[in-house]
Amino acid sequence: MTGFTHHPWLKGLLGDSEAAAIWRPEQQMQQMLACEAAFTRALGHTGQICMDQAIKVAALITDFKPDLDAINTATMRDGVPVPELVAQLKRAAGPDAGAVHTGTTSQDVVDTALALTIKAFNDLLGDRLTFLAADFDTLSDQFRDRTIMGRTRMQAALPITFSERLATWSQPMARHALRLSRLRPEIEVLSLGGAVGDRAAFGDHGDAIAAAMATDLGLHNPSKAPHAMRDHIADYANLLSLITGSLGKMGQDICLMAQQGIEEIGLEGGGGSSAMPHKQNPVLAELLVSNARFNATQLAGMHHALVHEQERSGAAWVLEWMILPQMAEVTARSLSVAHDLATRITRIG
Amino acid sequence: MTGFTHHPWLKGLLGDSEAAAIWRPEQQMQQMLACEAAFTRALGHTGQICMDQAIKVAALITDFKPDLDAINTATMRDGVPVPELVAQLKRAAGPDAGAVHTGTTSQDVVDTALALTIKAFNDLLGDRLTFLAADFDTLSDQFRDRTIMGRTRMQAALPITFSERLATWSQPMARHALRLSRLRPEIEVLSLGGAVGDRAAFGDHGDAIAAAMATDLGLHNPSKAPHAMRDHIADYANLLSLITGSLGKMGQDICLMAQQGIEEIGLEGGGGSSAMPHKQNPVLAELLVSNARFNATQLAGMHHALVHEQERSGAAWVLEWMILPQMAEVTARSLSVAHDLATRITRIG
Amino acid sequence: MTGFTHHPWLKGLLGDSEAAAIWRPEQQMQQMLACEAAFTRALGHTGQICMDQAIKVAALITDFKPDLDAINTATMRDGVPVPELVAQLKRAAGPDAGAVHTGTTSQDVVDTALALTIKAFNDLLGDRLTFLAADFDTLSDQFRDRTIMGRTRMQAALPITFSERLATWSQPMARHALRLSRLRPEIEVLSLGGAVGDRAAFGDHGDAIAAAMATDLGLHNPSKAPHAMRDHIADYANLLSLITGSLGKMGQDICLMAQQGIEEIGLEGGGGSSAMPHKQNPVLAELLVSNARFNATQLAGMHHALVHEQERSGAAWVLEWMILPQMAEVTARSLSVAHDLATRITRIG
Amino acid sequence: MTGFTHHPWLKGLLGDSEAAAIWRPEQQMQQMLACEAAFTRALGHTGQICMDQAIKVAALITDFKPDLDAINTATMRDGVPVPELVAQLKRAAGPDAGAVHTGTTSQDVVDTALALTIKAFNDLLGDRLTFLAADFDTLSDQFRDRTIMGRTRMQAALPITFSERLATWSQPMARHALRLSRLRPEIEVLSLGGAVGDRAAFGDHGDAIAAAMATDLGLHNPSKAPHAMRDHIADYANLLSLITGSLGKMGQDICLMAQQGIEEIGLEGGGGSSAMPHKQNPVLAELLVSNARFNATQLAGMHHALVHEQERSGAAWVLEWMILPQMAEVTARSLSVAHDLATRITRIG
Repeated sequence: MTGFTHHPWLKGLLGDSEAAAIWRPEQQMQQMLACEAAFTRALGHTGQICMDQAIKVAALITDFKPDLDAINTATMRDGVPVPELVAQLKRAAGPDAGAVHTGTTSQDVVDTALALTIKAFNDLLGDRLTFLAADFDTLSDQFRDRTIMGRTRMQAALPITFSERLATWSQPMARHALRLSRLRPEIEVLSLGGAVGDRAAFGDHGDAIAAAMATDLGLHNPSKAPHAMRDHIADYANLLSLITGSLGKMGQDICLMAQQGIEEIGLEGGGGSSAMPHKQNPVLAELLVSNARFNATQLAGMHHALVHEQERSGAAWVLEWMILPQMAEVTARSLSVAHDLATRITRIG
Repeated sequence: MTGFTHHPWLKGLLGDSEAAAIWRPEQQMQQMLACEAAFTRALGHTGQICMDQAIKVAALITDFKPDLDAINTATMRDGVPVPELVAQLKRAAGPDAGAVHTGTTSQDVVDTALALTIKAFNDLLGDRLTFLAADFDTLSDQFRDRTIMGRTRMQAALPITFSERLATWSQPMARHALRLSRLRPEIEVLSLGGAVGDRAAFGDHGDAIAAAMATDLGLHNPSKAPHAMRDHIADYANLLSLITGSLGKMGQDICLMAQQGIEEIGLEGGGGSSAMPHKQNPVLAELLVSNARFNATQLAGMHHALVHEQERSGAAWVLEWMILPQMAEVTARSLSVAHDLATRITRIG
Repeated sequence: MTGFTHHPWLKGLLGDSEAAAIWRPEQQMQQMLACEAAFTRALGHTGQICMDQAIKVAALITDFKPDLDAINTATMRDGVPVPELVAQLKRAAGPDAGAVHTGTTSQDVVDTALALTIKAFNDLLGDRLTFLAADFDTLSDQFRDRTIMGRTRMQAALPITFSERLATWSQPMARHALRLSRLRPEIEVLSLGGAVGDRAAFGDHGDAIAAAMATDLGLHNPSKAPHAMRDHIADYANLLSLITGSLGKMGQDICLMAQQGIEEIGLEGGGGSSAMPHKQNPVLAELLVSNARFNATQLAGMHHALVHEQERSGAAWVLEWMILPQMAEVTARSLSVAHDLATRITRIG
Repeated sequence: MTGFTHHPWLKGLLGDSEAAAIWRPEQQMQQMLACEAAFTRALGHTGQICMDQAIKVAALITDFKPDLDAINTATMRDGVPVPELVAQLKRAAGPDAGAVHTGTTSQDVVDTALALTIKAFNDLLGDRLTFLAADFDTLSDQFRDRTIMGRTRMQAALPITFSERLATWSQPMARHALRLSRLRPEIEVLSLGGAVGDRAAFGDHGDAIAAAMATDLGLHNPSKAPHAMRDHIADYANLLSLITGSLGKMGQDICLMAQQGIEEIGLEGGGGSSAMPHKQNPVLAELLVSNARFNATQLAGMHHALVHEQERSGAAWVLEWMILPQMAEVTARSLSVAHDLATRITRIG
């Protein structure tokens, strides 16, 4: 789903290898196994099974090498990889099969794995926002007092210092960093609801199992599994699109500043043309605009996925799978592009 | 732009008269005048003009009855109503014309007026979220232990209590109320930047004038006018769509519960059919779905409007005008519909 | 729903009075009455009732002044205005009530009325496309050999004649005119299906009644009423957005050509600024961009409305009502804006 | 970009291997080489170079194995793979380098290759539409007279025969097949414009070269290269979303028919659940809904890409690259899913 990084010649332009490493399916499978292992350990911690068994089975799960082809085949039927994965795990566990997955459900596993993926990705986002803030500080140190023409409605208005233009790039990113901090406890959450989300299969032990799992996995623990309440996911997608949208403004500005006749910016290393070797195209600045519009478009789909039926909507849930990983990759890419651009600016005004 | 309330026979179904009263153009004009008056008073408070003059001119502005036809004609040329409004105000002020608008710009006025509108609307949203929480509490008191079939992927799974289904309606709304509280200081903000957003026309007095205006108007005061940084607006639109999206899930559930063959809900006062008078259509529940999809769709446009050029983008800014008021009205309507539906439930299970 | 034309000071900028006259609710009510009258006449033509009665009742329907307040109240319950409208008509018809609406259904009436509205609107679209083609011919006569800088990726490439740039504005519009001709028979269609769309209430006479109605109303007559097949509507929305999108390219080009430092276009009558009276803002060109992005955004909603449940989806159908009229008005406005802009060009190159 | 088929365990559910084979990057590279070879042959056919040289160089191009890593690196700078590809080809051609690419431009190559890809994909679409029509005929033969409950607004209305419901699935697909035939000449088009789209580099020979290329490649030949006129692409995306949208209606219907308490359909081979092995989930029917909403969402982005600046917009063009291949794959997948579903129906009513 993070297909850009698979592309033989667009991966460098459109892909983000660090983001793709976090979101790649094999890593998500590891996160699913991490979730299953934590569940088994939690059965031990809460006395549902003995601790020795829990540790042994959890280790088996953690090291398990699933048969992905079989999972692919089963997913065509089941719509979700977990039933076949669990069947494989239970076979491997043999007499300990009861210590695997029992009482939980596919969505618990997939959504908890997603939360772990997002948690790792949020570290990346946070780092890149920090780096970009430093880039903007450097730009400010270099060019803040340079005079450029302030333009409104695409017309020259009055001269401004570059610090004013730069603030329209940097201030939103500072706010996005705050938004990210605020959202982390809401999106990095355990899902443990069982078949219909009510933890009924665990009797009185559901909350204790969930608490143990959350501690184990470093996730927050909501009172009810968010199987059919997807506001945290849609809200997170909003943050991703806010980031790319604000960077799209930066990209659009740079494209406009780089025009012949305006020439208020100098950039090292613009792009070439097959027809006109002399041209220096602001390729990365354009890409910030493309990515902004890509994520703005996708966000609608993530909000349509809020209309989740009953205890679980296969249709709405799969729509999230189809959209969110790419939004994340595109967001990471825009952050690295902005960093690149910021460090390539050689002249302002 | 809140056109639903103008519709002779759809206004009752689709419109929200309280929301429309807040968002209606005439009220936004009052907010623009409130902004101009506060600006003039701030000139007095900060010693740019004498206080007596400030009070006199501010009173004149507050009571001013603009010639809306002339403003309409001028807006076709200017793209914004403020130049002609200011010209009218300055004519009315005569020798005091210098105490009107001087140093500020159209976007300051329109955006500050929008902030005042949103502030009033947030009060309405907050109230409705509170009322709806009470409705859900009542539903919980009445029906929480009723057994319904838990359904996943639109298939019967295992029985649950109604409290579980209800939690998927109520818990997101409680989160949205928190989100609203969190966003209010970010969206209820003064805009005072002047022509190119740098407050240059005010010399050293810009920050003091802004502080005085913000206090006067009950708005927060960001360090830089958000002319070209629209993340707060897009983020607010996200909240509106989160609200309607979560309520869309409630509506979809009710439509599904009301089906013949399922019949897990009883509703007073469903809709009639011209061909089949015996039918009871879950019209309001369907409307929650329509509204969810409407706002999910619109949200993309609000995020495209993040790609704002330079110090002000006419194109992106107008796109906000075209979309946001309807999103707000639809959100308010979904909240009142949910209240109606919640109070019409006569049977569960 | 065509709310822009109700706005006291944005109606001139954003609204289109001719389009709004076609789409205004009162006119749609006339089209609903036209549909009901044609149905009654068709009952006569096909011998279901005697022709004298048919003519008398149809005349009563045509001249009927519905109680819109009562319809509004009923629509809050029924989700559709037709049951109450029909009740009023049947009361007015007294002993002839059986000759009113019997066997047809709400969606037949609303959708046939929509088809009549679209038919009238298509005449307007066709005329404007013709006028705009003439505008482009005039521009070609005046400026085709003027040299401007060809720009790719927002960078100067090689000089071109204006005829090349103009072709990117005019050729798509010529294609849109052809697309409109092609779509008219698919969108200007009768709906006559009855309660569940199968014309069962008419026995063997359904096809004859439909044929008579279609001839009477000047509509095409599909073999099955499109109650739950909305591809023609979504396809039509696509055409509207293609038109505004192509004009958005023209608007964007003009904004870029009008920049200081580029100045490859002269325009009469640009917009003023409250802060900088000397500025000439390309307000109308920006509006073409806003409108393009508005319709591109809306189009997604119209395609989501394709997911129509069973024989009629209240949720998907209402979504169309909320979106399509505004898309139409915005399209008409972009065409009039493009005409205005084309005739204001005083200089190229 | 067709990332679903790379996913180890979702490729079977979400991916479409036949579509992915057509759209995969390596195949698009072949199409780019086919375009370059046809250009070189056209130089021969039109006497720009001698025919022997043309044939020799074209064969070299056709068999060329590009260094994709180098192209990836260069694309990060150039934004497009063609400059580096052409540099490699020219090096390989040695003294014949002038017979490679001279006078054409990157977008000509990429867009012509896209047209060839779409042409191959249209064959697949056409075939699948034909097969699906046959599936529907078979369903009609088996079940057309079965009675099911006609439902409007999700409420039981009156009984209908299954033929009525089936018509809402099959009739739109028949129309889409016609739409596809109509669009093929508009989308399967050569692009030959050169640097700024005016064929200036070819002197008087541009039209002859284009005609020869179009004949060679089996493409239509528009009078002007559509570099900056993207209505044909957006219109094509509309068709893809119409197809998935109509199939989404079929999927939604099947989900609703399969509910316990309704049970108007029997399906072989539904999906399993990790928590409830007895359940039979209508996974494929849900996927039709997911895909419909996915493409409805994406379509907005393709229409935003209509706002193309000047002679070529890097930002808008790349947005197409990011969106269109996935829309195509999803469309193909929905068609194969619908075929699967249609053949798995064992009972109606």
